[in-house]
Formats: sequence, structure tokens, C-alpha cells
Amino acid sequence: MRYKTGTILLLLFVGVIFISTAKTQEPFSPYVGDKGEIQLPKDYRTSWSYLGSWVVPDKNAPGYGFHDVFTQPETVKAYQKTGEFPDGAVLVKEIRKVESADMTTGHASWAGPIDVWFVMVKDRKDRFPKNTNWGDGWGWALFKASDPTKNVSTDYKKDCLGCHVPAKNTDWVYIKGYTVK
Amino acid sequence: MRYKTGTILLLLFVGVIFISTAKTQEPFSPYVGDKGEIQLPKDYRTSWSYLGSWVVPDKNAPGYGFHDVFTQPETVKAYQKTGEFPDGAVLVKEIRKVESADMTTGHASWAGPIDVWFVMVKDRKDRFPKNTNWGDGWGWALFKASDPTKNVSTDYKKDCLGCHVPAKNTDWVYIKGYTVK
Repeated sequence: MRYKTGTILLLLFVGVIFISTAKTQEPFSPYVGDKGEIQLPKDYRTSWSYLGSWVVPDKNAPGYGFHDVFTQPETVKAYQKTGEFPDGAVLVKEIRKVESADMTTGHASWAGPIDVWFVMVKDRKDRFPKNTNWGDGWGWALFKASDPTKNVSTDYKKDCLGCHVPAKNTDWVYIKGYTVK
Repeated sequence: MRYKTGTILLLLFVGVIFISTAKTQEPFSPYVGDKGEIQLPKDYRTSWSYLGSWVVPDKNAPGYGFHDVFTQPETVKAYQKTGEFPDGAVLVKEIRKVESADMTTGHASWAGPIDVWFVMVKDRKDRFPKNTNWGDGWGWALFKASDPTKNVSTDYKKDCLGCHVPAKNTDWVYIKGYTVK
């Protein structure tokens, strides 16, 4: 009987160790690897929420393109409740070519083929201090249409942050165009 | 015993009648009433799929506004498979004011406050021949920001169809700007 109790306790102990190990190894986000490698989410167009668009029609402007922004539905709910982006929130911004024509409704513009995607992942715990694509509360990534599997940003301060400076007070995000809020 | 069998048969008969009655009374769409009254869906911004945007920035143009279009996720899947809008497909088009400013990325436009919603409901069975908001394979509706519960269109041929004529060959819908396809 004593032996049996010992076995049960041992099994319980092993079980607890196993569960806690599994918990610490649970990934922070399905779109982020162990070392902070950011991946482009695949199904955001059909199953995520659309936040809004920005249109910069001038081909010579640095931000030329039709920018459509998406996030997870749970991020919308959390933001509507707290006014802040929750840990793990992902913003996907498509940059597409701007197409336009004179139509019966007036001169209209719409989004054409994709150029690049910008992805931001909210990190409230400074998880990847050694990764130069993480900082200021976010992970930052840039994917080109030629290879959507590869984040070509090597340093967010150099490749991403510049354009976001005017939105610093709203956690680096241009929330003004997000009509869902 | 004979009596018992008779009772069972009667109950089965009543059950079948009840089920078939319930089936015929099942509404065509959660957004359409018995006589074809179209309602504005409520949760499309967070749980539906975004199809694309049209921007007509000229305030004097007949189609002035930032047009964002949404549909049910299952409509996207069906369209991707068949190239056609399935029975019951709903398109919600928001028309918002166009806001714009010079930004670090260039002169940008984005969507401001809502003006109106256009709603189209695909009907492949000509269900409401007496309702003047139904025809050409669709139910047509227009809601104003001042009262989102009231369809102010009284005759789709007068209130809606005019602007859709150039898109007649694509089932009256401007699919060119729908980047999800």
C-alpha cells in the first residue's frame, strides 16, 4: 500500500512537472517563433476583422499605395473595452497598388495587386530584447509579394519606426482611420 | 396492441406535418422579413469578411465617399469556389465621408463618419415578385445614418440600379475592387 501511494505521488509529481514545462513552452503567438521570428498570418482576409484603409495615391510619395488593415476579432473586442492593444494583438497592413478610373459615380480609386505586407505584433513583456525587430512594445515585420514567407526587416528602428513617429502617442498605430472603434 | 400502433402512427404523422411546416416557415435569411423587408446586419464589422474599398474623393461626384464592402465569410468561400454569389449572400457597403491630410507618407485619405449603407441580398428564387425592392436577382436596400433600422429605398430600379448598370455583366456588383477573390 505504501509503495502504491508512493507511485501515485511520483506520477502526480511527474505530471505537474510535465504540465508546467508544456506551459512555459507554449508559444506566445501562433505567428511568432521561439526567437521572435514573425510570420505573415494566412487567413486574415476571410476570418479577421477589417480595421480601415489609408490611401496614398501619389506614386512618388514614400507611402504610396492602398493600405488595408486587419486584426484578430478578439483584438477589436479587447480594444473597444480597454482602449489599448492587448498582448498578442496582430496588425496586418496590406499595401496594394492604387488603381483608378472615371466611373459613373465619379473618379474612383480602389486597391490593385499586392506589393508588401507590414505586420505588427503587440508584446507587453519585452520578450525578445536581443531581436532587433522587437521594441517599443511591438514586433515589426515586412513581407514582400515576391516571398510572403520571409520577413525582410532586419532592424525595426531602421526599417519601420520612421513612418510611425507621428502616431507615437497612440502606441505607434494610426488609429484615426480605424472606423470599427 | 392495435390501438397502440395507431397512436404511434398518428404521432409520427403529426410529427412529420410539424417538421415540414416548420421547414417551410424557416426564413430565407436572418436579414429578410416575410415580405422581403431587408434589415441592416449588425455585427458585420467584426465578424464578416471585408471585400474591398472604393474611394470617390470628389465631394460633388454622385458617388462621393469612402465605400467599404463586407460579406459573410461563407459567401467568400462559395464565390471563390463557383465564381458566383450564392443564394442568401449579403453585401453591405458602407459609405463614409472621405477625410484627408498631408502626412509623412504623402497625401493620404481615409474613411470618416458614416453617411449611408447600401445592402444587397442575393435571391436566386425570385421570392418577392411584388416587392419593388427586389429584382434582377437581388434585394436592394438603403439605410441612412440617422435611422439604421429603416430601409428608405422604395423602388430599387429608381433608387439603386442606375449606379450598377456598368457592373451588369458581373451580376450588378463591382467585383474589380474586391481583392479577396
